[in-house]
Amino acid sequence: MTLLENSEDTLFIGIDGGGSKCKAIISNSKGDILGTGLGGPANPFYGLQIAINSIVEASENALVDTGMENKSLSCLVAGIGLAGVNLPELFQKIQDWKHPFAKMYLTTDMDIANIGAHNDQYGAVIIVGTGSCGYVSLPGTKHTFGGYGFPIGDKASGAWIGLKAIEYTLLVLDGFSSDSLLAIKICEFFSVDTGYELSQKFVGQASRQYAKIASLVFECADKGDAKALEIINQGIDYISILAETLIEDSSTRLCMIGGLSKYFLSRLEPKLASYFSEVLDQPEVGAVKFAIQNLEERIPV
Amino acid sequence: MTLLENSEDTLFIGIDGGGSKCKAIISNSKGDILGTGLGGPANPFYGLQIAINSIVEASENALVDTGMENKSLSCLVAGIGLAGVNLPELFQKIQDWKHPFAKMYLTTDMDIANIGAHNDQYGAVIIVGTGSCGYVSLPGTKHTFGGYGFPIGDKASGAWIGLKAIEYTLLVLDGFSSDSLLAIKICEFFSVDTGYELSQKFVGQASRQYAKIASLVFECADKGDAKALEIINQGIDYISILAETLIEDSSTRLCMIGGLSKYFLSRLEPKLASYFSEVLDQPEVGAVKFAIQNLEERIPV
Repeated sequence: MTLLENSEDTLFIGIDGGGSKCKAIISNSKGDILGTGLGGPANPFYGLQIAINSIVEASENALVDTGMENKSLSCLVAGIGLAGVNLPELFQKIQDWKHPFAKMYLTTDMDIANIGAHNDQYGAVIIVGTGSCGYVSLPGTKHTFGGYGFPIGDKASGAWIGLKAIEYTLLVLDGFSSDSLLAIKICEFFSVDTGYELSQKFVGQASRQYAKIASLVFECADKGDAKALEIINQGIDYISILAETLIEDSSTRLCMIGGLSKYFLSRLEPKLASYFSEVLDQPEVGAVKFAIQNLEERIPV
Repeated sequence: MTLLENSEDTLFIGIDGGGSKCKAIISNSKGDILGTGLGGPANPFYGLQIAINSIVEASENALVDTGMENKSLSCLVAGIGLAGVNLPELFQKIQDWKHPFAKMYLTTDMDIANIGAHNDQYGAVIIVGTGSCGYVSLPGTKHTFGGYGFPIGDKASGAWIGLKAIEYTLLVLDGFSSDSLLAIKICEFFSVDTGYELSQKFVGQASRQYAKIASLVFECADKGDAKALEIINQGIDYISILAETLIEDSSTRLCMIGGLSKYFLSRLEPKLASYFSEVLDQPEVGAVKFAIQNLEERIPV
């Protein structure tokens, strides 16, 4: 019996790679977390080599954190969930990587988030942070709703909310829309007085820059700002239709995750909100479980 | 008296540099066009050296077109209007360029469009093509409305119309919005069947890609498609408020230019449409006039 079989001695590394950072945890087969590590951006869509470097960086940091000085990455069975690998060509490129692990099992960031949230490979999640999407995994089928990226998709996401608020504030600064708390707060946040200055804050910026002001839009909505309310209510409508679809399509457990989930969960119509269950574990824990599942399926003990 | 004074012998080159191409014309001081040339993209925001290369390329092509084999660019007084140089740092970088011309006078693409449209340095224009903005030049003042760029600004532009239509079509393809002629036509245009396939047509694409479907949205609106009508009517509302502001702010001549101007002019409320005058000349002709004006002001004959 080797370390690659799922014995008590087998060590696993779970990796959650997103557009801004990469998280790794090392655990044994019982799920005890032995070490954690962080790395840089790991969405291969924005650079294959950068993503690979970030995965290795996070993994080595996690290994150092375990204090096991005699181990290398080649001892670890890796479960990796990455943003961007829903694109088949990127999935294949990462799959072809001559990785440093004992074994590597690859899936999407949505999949490991789902496994983590439910402690099960089957279930449904709504992810709403910088981006947004719905995801359901059932026996024999996995399906994604939305998640088409900024600015065409990701409705109700932080980036989407931010974009709507910036569009409106630029109209206010040109004198084409009446002023409000929201426009004032956005100009304060970016320390700008003119549309030109505000626009310069977004030149060449990715969706993260837009998402920075999402919580501010929620705050203004809570204070009764009409435009902020309009934006947030459009977001709630979208999250609601997404939730209703996932509930209808699958009678499975449903969770909401991501930085904006607490904002939306508290604002959904109560009956709809009652369908949501608690998130059991983080995506990187889901990645470890994904590795364990795959190892059990593929290598008979 | 040298060639740099505005004598009958002085030759001028007018350059209109935008995000997709650069146009140059060579003319004498009477305005007779002696040659024209085209070059590549010339918005320095997307690459200073690319813009400079495109300006030189268009200029040399125009010089060849004149058939004057004994002349070089150093004989020409250049008037250059460029997209992107509304940003002071880009203006300065182009200004610092060791250019090949006898003299170079630099301004924005909006300014030369305005001079061309009115055959005068004073006037107002609404530019609506891939992007959108309003511009007014009066003695002692120049002001731009909108034009903050895609996706935050440029309301009613081709890119903005395209984005709205793509957002909607993705909702249709996810089953979250009811189907319509517009969604069908957009899927046909891009030869796609799914949201995923449609989203792939926009990965890393600039605003031009979105603007490609603007005329299709106008067509669907004319056939009564409700969503297309909603988008176009929002565009008309914005162009109308922009026009009303320019009319109020300045009692000057007003023109609409750009690829979508014919679509909007025919759809404005008739009284508002009646304020618009005919475009007298193209922006590159405006660039020549800008050079002539500047040479006359600065070098006494």
